[in-house]
Amino acid sequence: MSMINGFSAADAERLSAHERSLIERRERLLGPAYRLFYERPLHTVRGEGVWLFDDQGRRYLDAYNNVASVGHCHPRVVSAISRQAAQLNTHTRYLQEGILDYAEQLLGTFPDYLERVMFTCTGSEANDLALRIARHHTGGTGVIITRFAYHGVTGDLAELSPSLGAGIRLPAHARTVLAPDAYRLGADQVAATLAADVRAAIDDLRAQGIRPAALLLDGIFSSDGVFPGPAGFLAEAVALAQAEGLLYIADEVQSGFARTGDAFWGFERHGVRPDLVTLGKPMGNGQPIAGLVGRAEVVDGFGRNLRYFNTFGGNPVSCAAGQAVLDVIRDEELQARARETGRYLLQGLGRLQQRHALIGDVRGAGLFLGVELVKDRASQAPAAAETRRVVNAMRERGVLISAAGPLENILKIRPLLAFEREHADLLLETLDAALDEVGAP
Amino acid sequence: MSMINGFSAADAERLSAHERSLIERRERLLGPAYRLFYERPLHTVRGEGVWLFDDQGRRYLDAYNNVASVGHCHPRVVSAISRQAAQLNTHTRYLQEGILDYAEQLLGTFPDYLERVMFTCTGSEANDLALRIARHHTGGTGVIITRFAYHGVTGDLAELSPSLGAGIRLPAHARTVLAPDAYRLGADQVAATLAADVRAAIDDLRAQGIRPAALLLDGIFSSDGVFPGPAGFLAEAVALAQAEGLLYIADEVQSGFARTGDAFWGFERHGVRPDLVTLGKPMGNGQPIAGLVGRAEVVDGFGRNLRYFNTFGGNPVSCAAGQAVLDVIRDEELQARARETGRYLLQGLGRLQQRHALIGDVRGAGLFLGVELVKDRASQAPAAAETRRVVNAMRERGVLISAAGPLENILKIRPLLAFEREHADLLLETLDAALDEVGAP
Repeated sequence: MSMINGFSAADAERLSAHERSLIERRERLLGPAYRLFYERPLHTVRGEGVWLFDDQGRRYLDAYNNVASVGHCHPRVVSAISRQAAQLNTHTRYLQEGILDYAEQLLGTFPDYLERVMFTCTGSEANDLALRIARHHTGGTGVIITRFAYHGVTGDLAELSPSLGAGIRLPAHARTVLAPDAYRLGADQVAATLAADVRAAIDDLRAQGIRPAALLLDGIFSSDGVFPGPAGFLAEAVALAQAEGLLYIADEVQSGFARTGDAFWGFERHGVRPDLVTLGKPMGNGQPIAGLVGRAEVVDGFGRNLRYFNTFGGNPVSCAAGQAVLDVIRDEELQARARETGRYLLQGLGRLQQRHALIGDVRGAGLFLGVELVKDRASQAPAAAETRRVVNAMRERGVLISAAGPLENILKIRPLLAFEREHADLLLETLDAALDEVGAP
Repeated sequence: MSMINGFSAADAERLSAHERSLIERRERLLGPAYRLFYERPLHTVRGEGVWLFDDQGRRYLDAYNNVASVGHCHPRVVSAISRQAAQLNTHTRYLQEGILDYAEQLLGTFPDYLERVMFTCTGSEANDLALRIARHHTGGTGVIITRFAYHGVTGDLAELSPSLGAGIRLPAHARTVLAPDAYRLGADQVAATLAADVRAAIDDLRAQGIRPAALLLDGIFSSDGVFPGPAGFLAEAVALAQAEGLLYIADEVQSGFARTGDAFWGFERHGVRPDLVTLGKPMGNGQPIAGLVGRAEVVDGFGRNLRYFNTFGGNPVSCAAGQAVLDVIRDEELQARARETGRYLLQGLGRLQQRHALIGDVRGAGLFLGVELVKDRASQAPAAAETRRVVNAMRERGVLISAAGPLENILKIRPLLAFEREHADLLLETLDAALDEVGAP
């Protein structure tokens, strides 16, 4: 949920009259909640594969958006949407085969013990529903999250998303734990620190008379700063929470659908068994589809006692898009490609680290990578302004990335799964040049 | 949010082996939250105009779904979706013209003082955001709703949706008022009763130390039982609430987009000025798009202080669908058609009321109609079982409607805007026959 907002008078001068008029119309029609990426906003008009094109026909390598994950306007997804939209698009109170075929295929990507799926339209709705289910199941309200978490924009989730900014006040039923930051804590300390923090959070909730309901964790701690490893660091904390009766909700909205390479789902890298898993962003390659998967006992208890109907959730067009995405990931072997290209990128970033003192740490799993920029490696002082300049320099050079972390000093690199080695090379060369431009700290 | 659920052993025998297998797969994959319409569920495979088709090629007149409001699989909407899906589908952090063109056209359907629009994917997200905005603006938490309201399925909204069933416990910050039921209260009492109830709710919230934030009302009180008139009955209550500093949120998710015939938005029939208006269901004719419109001061205050980003909200494909819907409503003059066909239907229902003692009341605005069935007209005792039988008898005869109200004794008739007079005739003839079959009370 990190963003690079605002632009200076100097930037405004570089905008065309048309771009300025678009920005004025945005402000007049949509208001100030709508913020733009980059100091010089990008006017997108077309997408194809790993590329976005602006109104001047310039192309940009998309190394950030994990919605159009199998490639912008992938022909199989477009075709599935077009065909189904012309045939039938209605709700789930009638019998339909498409949703069942898709549900079966989707559940097939999970461990067998996760037997049920429910469909929503957004990751926010999925996390919101997961929270309702966890509270129903446990009878508790308490939720444990990481300190700079992002889980969604509904009322209940925004207050569990400190990364949304200073306007967010943590509710009485929430406790935060340190994100598993191997760079600062040391790789050998991450698991024990997380477990101890979760232990303390549970104890503190109980001491305040609040029954804990859920441990809610992003599959790769994206907004906290991208923390993929060491793989397995979740196991102790999750086991502890589950032993204490909490449900573990794995938020895979960002890390799911083959992105982390080694596994189809981010949690699998840690050898843990979530009670509920929430899905979103890349699920329909742009079509608004999301949902959750869970243990039958947990999902059914809620479903028997409380009605839940999501008008557009699981509609035939969204399911057709979701099905096409799964088919493409399988047929184009995108999980293996995410693993291989991710490894290649990580090695390349390691070489850049040797050349650029600004890089304090490189890390990643598959095609979800973080590059932490620091003022110097000894103090690990965050280089926030430099990160911002690198992101914008990359954009000027035609490569799209963003920044993450409480201080936005971590380059967030999240290429489309369709990335090839040549795209990785272009990304690395461009980052090298951008770092040269921004200079040593 | 009313539904006709469950089916008996006798019904199961009438199901084909294939239908039974679909039901078993649903239960196994999706769990018990997924409930089906009708005692004999309908297996839909195709939609076209006002018709849904089952797997045997039988057609059903759709007089219920107000999502595919301009007609199932309307070619202009399908074409807009297909074209845009092949061109670009990404988020709103880049400049794009489509969202601005659509936002302008959409705002053009509202009174001038409503200047801002924000996009979400579902009506639930729209109401949830409206509530967040109202609370931010007023600094309060209290919300006033009707006694059998439905506003959505997020955690914050489900507890403000008593129609979701006994599992819903009203929170301390909520107060309910009687729905404006002209049939039981008398047409001349509705406005004053509603205003007095709102007055009492505000006073009671304050007495408990809870600052009121919003009066949240459905544009036609759909789940309460469909209460369209007399037009103007909202004015006194809304003026009072606004004078007391509450925001009035007009929930137009069900009643919006020309459905009520006399006006494009349900609230306009009452001559009131909402601070926020929420939109959903028919907005994209099936594409998951929703949103809210509001006063600049209210929306901007929130947007300046709190980040809000909805990944799929306002994406180019959803906006293209929304634009096509507005174009079709205009070019096919669907608002006038909803008014004329609605009037024709209401007259026909009035004639049925003379023939069938079961009908206690007929009411409606445009193509949102309610037919209240009672055991006898003097006592007005709800005829719930008969309503259920009528709905199912209609389905067996190929016409789809449902039921509403706390006791589900009100036939909810909500035809597609594309209804022609011949479809209205078929609906009336079929209802006449179904009422004959179900018999006098």
